[in-house]
Amino acid sequence: MARLLRINTRNKKAAFEDLSGDYAGLGGRGLTSRIVRREVPPTCHPLSSANKLVVAAGLLTGTTAANTGRLSVGGKSPLTNTIKESNAGGTFSQKLAKLDIMGLILEDKPEPGSKPIAIFINKDGVQFFETPELEGLGTYEASSRLFERFGSKAGVMVIGPAGENNRLASAIMFTDPKGNPSRAAGRGGLGALMGSKRVKAIVVDSQGAKGQEVADKEAFKSAAKRWAEILVNHPVTGQGLPGYGTSILINIINEAGTLPTQNFRSGRFDKAQQISGEKMVELINSRGGVAKEGCHAGCVIQCSQKYCDAKGEYLTSGFEYETVWAFGSNLLIADMDDIARLDRLCDDLGLDTIETGTTLAMAMEAGIIPWGEGQAAIDLLKRVYAPKDYLGAIIGNGTAFTAEALGVDRVPVVKRQSIPAYDPRAAKGIGVTYATSSMGADHTAGYAICQNILKVGGDIDPLGKAGNVEISKNLQIATAAVDSTGFCLFVAFAVLDTEDALDVIARLISARLGISFTADDIGKTGIEVLKDEYSFNRDAGFSPVHDQLPDFFINEELSPHNVKWDLSTDELQMAKVEI
Amino acid sequence: MARLLRINTRNKKAAFEDLSGDYAGLGGRGLTSRIVRREVPPTCHPLSSANKLVVAAGLLTGTTAANTGRLSVGGKSPLTNTIKESNAGGTFSQKLAKLDIMGLILEDKPEPGSKPIAIFINKDGVQFFETPELEGLGTYEASSRLFERFGSKAGVMVIGPAGENNRLASAIMFTDPKGNPSRAAGRGGLGALMGSKRVKAIVVDSQGAKGQEVADKEAFKSAAKRWAEILVNHPVTGQGLPGYGTSILINIINEAGTLPTQNFRSGRFDKAQQISGEKMVELINSRGGVAKEGCHAGCVIQCSQKYCDAKGEYLTSGFEYETVWAFGSNLLIADMDDIARLDRLCDDLGLDTIETGTTLAMAMEAGIIPWGEGQAAIDLLKRVYAPKDYLGAIIGNGTAFTAEALGVDRVPVVKRQSIPAYDPRAAKGIGVTYATSSMGADHTAGYAICQNILKVGGDIDPLGKAGNVEISKNLQIATAAVDSTGFCLFVAFAVLDTEDALDVIARLISARLGISFTADDIGKTGIEVLKDEYSFNRDAGFSPVHDQLPDFFINEELSPHNVKWDLSTDELQMAKVEI
Repeated sequence: MARLLRINTRNKKAAFEDLSGDYAGLGGRGLTSRIVRREVPPTCHPLSSANKLVVAAGLLTGTTAANTGRLSVGGKSPLTNTIKESNAGGTFSQKLAKLDIMGLILEDKPEPGSKPIAIFINKDGVQFFETPELEGLGTYEASSRLFERFGSKAGVMVIGPAGENNRLASAIMFTDPKGNPSRAAGRGGLGALMGSKRVKAIVVDSQGAKGQEVADKEAFKSAAKRWAEILVNHPVTGQGLPGYGTSILINIINEAGTLPTQNFRSGRFDKAQQISGEKMVELINSRGGVAKEGCHAGCVIQCSQKYCDAKGEYLTSGFEYETVWAFGSNLLIADMDDIARLDRLCDDLGLDTIETGTTLAMAMEAGIIPWGEGQAAIDLLKRVYAPKDYLGAIIGNGTAFTAEALGVDRVPVVKRQSIPAYDPRAAKGIGVTYATSSMGADHTAGYAICQNILKVGGDIDPLGKAGNVEISKNLQIATAAVDSTGFCLFVAFAVLDTEDALDVIARLISARLGISFTADDIGKTGIEVLKDEYSFNRDAGFSPVHDQLPDFFINEELSPHNVKWDLSTDELQMAKVEI
Repeated sequence: MARLLRINTRNKKAAFEDLSGDYAGLGGRGLTSRIVRREVPPTCHPLSSANKLVVAAGLLTGTTAANTGRLSVGGKSPLTNTIKESNAGGTFSQKLAKLDIMGLILEDKPEPGSKPIAIFINKDGVQFFETPELEGLGTYEASSRLFERFGSKAGVMVIGPAGENNRLASAIMFTDPKGNPSRAAGRGGLGALMGSKRVKAIVVDSQGAKGQEVADKEAFKSAAKRWAEILVNHPVTGQGLPGYGTSILINIINEAGTLPTQNFRSGRFDKAQQISGEKMVELINSRGGVAKEGCHAGCVIQCSQKYCDAKGEYLTSGFEYETVWAFGSNLLIADMDDIARLDRLCDDLGLDTIETGTTLAMAMEAGIIPWGEGQAAIDLLKRVYAPKDYLGAIIGNGTAFTAEALGVDRVPVVKRQSIPAYDPRAAKGIGVTYATSSMGADHTAGYAICQNILKVGGDIDPLGKAGNVEISKNLQIATAAVDSTGFCLFVAFAVLDTEDALDVIARLISARLGISFTADDIGKTGIEVLKDEYSFNRDAGFSPVHDQLPDFFINEELSPHNVKWDLSTDELQMAKVEI
């Protein structure tokens, strides 16, 4: 039977329990959000002992079905004070699932001043290690030492100096199949929550485990085969993403006039070509990098890469469109290597790249560093390593915080989380998602760029209102379900365009759990997840007023389409599932 | 006819209009809250051009009635994001009223990087002066230079480096009759709002003005005479406050077990005697200071003082109980001179003393400076002078912000404004006010210490629930009315205990305006003010969930009475006027 592992970080006790009652049959975001809803007081301070950090494998994680290795991390967000689920790749999730651990919960917190520890989990149980030698280390050095100690077959979940120092923009990093901590549960500051528990790392080794249980192996095998075909046959998941990674979007989104440039001052960047996916692949190929890599075993999409510097030395992986945007057009930086170094710094510090890019824009608004200067941005970001560098402390706390510290009033955030790489004025569907998501501005919560720009799963005018509330609502429901399965969100491109895709997913879930799960149940699952999340947020003090974009999107026109944000708070409420 | 003065800070234009329509007959908080409600978008960024800073004289200000020289300053608070009225003494208000200006509004904002200006108002109109030489100056030096330029008969409203740099805990300072900028519109960060308009100072000179209009001079004179008697005859306003200032409360509140000590860890301070009002008066008298002073002409209460250092040199004035608490028992500092220096520093920087004291407690919680060390606190606070000292920037941004910067999870704030000098667990009536006030934690919004501890106007058990919601509600209504008149809030002690006091106030207002105003109308006025404020907050995104104290008051017992905070969110809502 699937298990839940509770770890008390104050007394260093671990206990397994059956995943039963209210938690039975749940995985991924469905499980993290249910546990947070049931067990975390909505008004608690997010860094207090009452908050919990929940890690959950997806329902299909650990099986042979393609692209099911994603992980959900949940808690009350230190950044937004909402409920939070942050989704990550890497090898950790499959190893957890193979140990038959669907979820683990970090509870309580140690006395102030306690040294960081590491937690090791394998088939024999749970062990706690004092690791003062890891204190303050970047995630690259820390995970390298953890592999030395626990073996290179382990999967590592680790925070950097940002998380250790409770910085609100901090991420939790996961090692990829090459052992690099390049995969992030990035948004919402969950690294600070882990840091408040004084846990530097969790290391999981599934060697010798019996593997993930599958109730009906034959049915599962046949569904998994069709599932892989669906992914390989779709142009986005079969060709676009494997060919150029997500940065293929730079030219597309720039052309659409919705690439936020210089802190959302225009929708086009005149140097977009220099930071495009095409340019990235050219640099990778000329320097001995790798243009196609998966973030976990069983990935057929292979959107990751190995990006090397001009000397051919490894610089970074998991180098996404949103990161290139955040440090690129958003800051007027056009040098791909500078952007790659900023990405590497974020991974090593354990910081969310989107939040950090928009934060550096606040520093540029305030004149702390000049627009467009990559080296200045790098030097500023490095200050986050030092626990007592207070400008570093400010930058590490994200966009809204930095704006308050520096007196900037043009702040692209919803519920204190920064708005990512698609200007909502010229892509209204994604704007609806930013405004109404249960987690603050988040493109992954309902990726309406599909219908607004890419014309996958529909064709909805990105500049008008019509249809945009509806697509965002449907996508938010579907995404909550997808995030519960362990699927990579990118499967959505193929699912939206393939007639039998939902049935195949239902067959996979049915066979895995030995239940009768239908395509209709997928939507119901998503709705249940959103109900947990919205009700937590309501009880934490969020009202419809918070489901809106900042005033400057309403007041300022975006070039080249000269459009403003014009959805009212009442219209936006229609995008939310009723609780 | 009473006038409203609109000043556009972008194009430096000033225009007078009649106080008519929705604003007719309003003064003080009634006028500031009405203007903010009508003219400021509730969801705007508080430092954006859409926010307005409103200054209003009370209905009775500028007349001969005793203790009517108070001023209201309003806007959307940069600290709390709620509506805000902050009330101050000093000479500014009476001069404004004598020019027949009931309210002035700073609108719009200049381009980023604009130099600070001063605005001069006299009987001939409004003039704008570029004052780059005042940039970054403390309020003492700045007001001294302003008196040199505009004459010593002027009244000065000025911000310090904190407000200029948009620090969220910044105050607006007003000069007292001696010319010292010792009177503060302290709470809610309105100094940052003034700073965002790039106005360093407003100077008002009423020489040659015809004076405040009084419709029925005879009736006014007779009511004013009785009014002065009421104040002089009451033991608190006639003897207690004139004798020892507000610091007479240190021993009383300590004895009651509700003097918050070491960031609200206990209700008694073992060195309370060393920071008591009695000790303050002893030091003042032995050093050639002055124990009794008024903050404006016509004050019979005389709660202010001239506090000198050991060499007999002027150190500070307007040195209140809440300030002595904030830097004293709250930080375990028992040296009155250190506390006085911290008060002086706050006045000079233009910082709220309450917010700053609770902020320094966060620095002590985080180990930045040790508990109880006055000199360390002084050195840390001085860092706020330097615009690019980022630890100074953090400290200047107040308690919630500093806690977030330093990872502290025990944060005594409501709606991001810090809880002042009475522990709500052992004085439940004031706790109701902290939780439900329209402005975050604020003791002046409904001072239930009267009934809980001082037994003025009633006797309600401070440790139980019974009656505390009701007294807070009634006090909040009455206070909103008092804050609209220009009365010093301390008149409430006498009003609560004197049968004809409300009638006398009604007679004063009737005679001043030439209308028929009754004692019943006072309550109605208060309710109207609260309706404006609550409805603004609702539209700014505040819900009943925000009307509650932080969890640690609910979870931790306070010694010596070993009581917790136990009023539910539903019970607390009963303290609010319905909108």
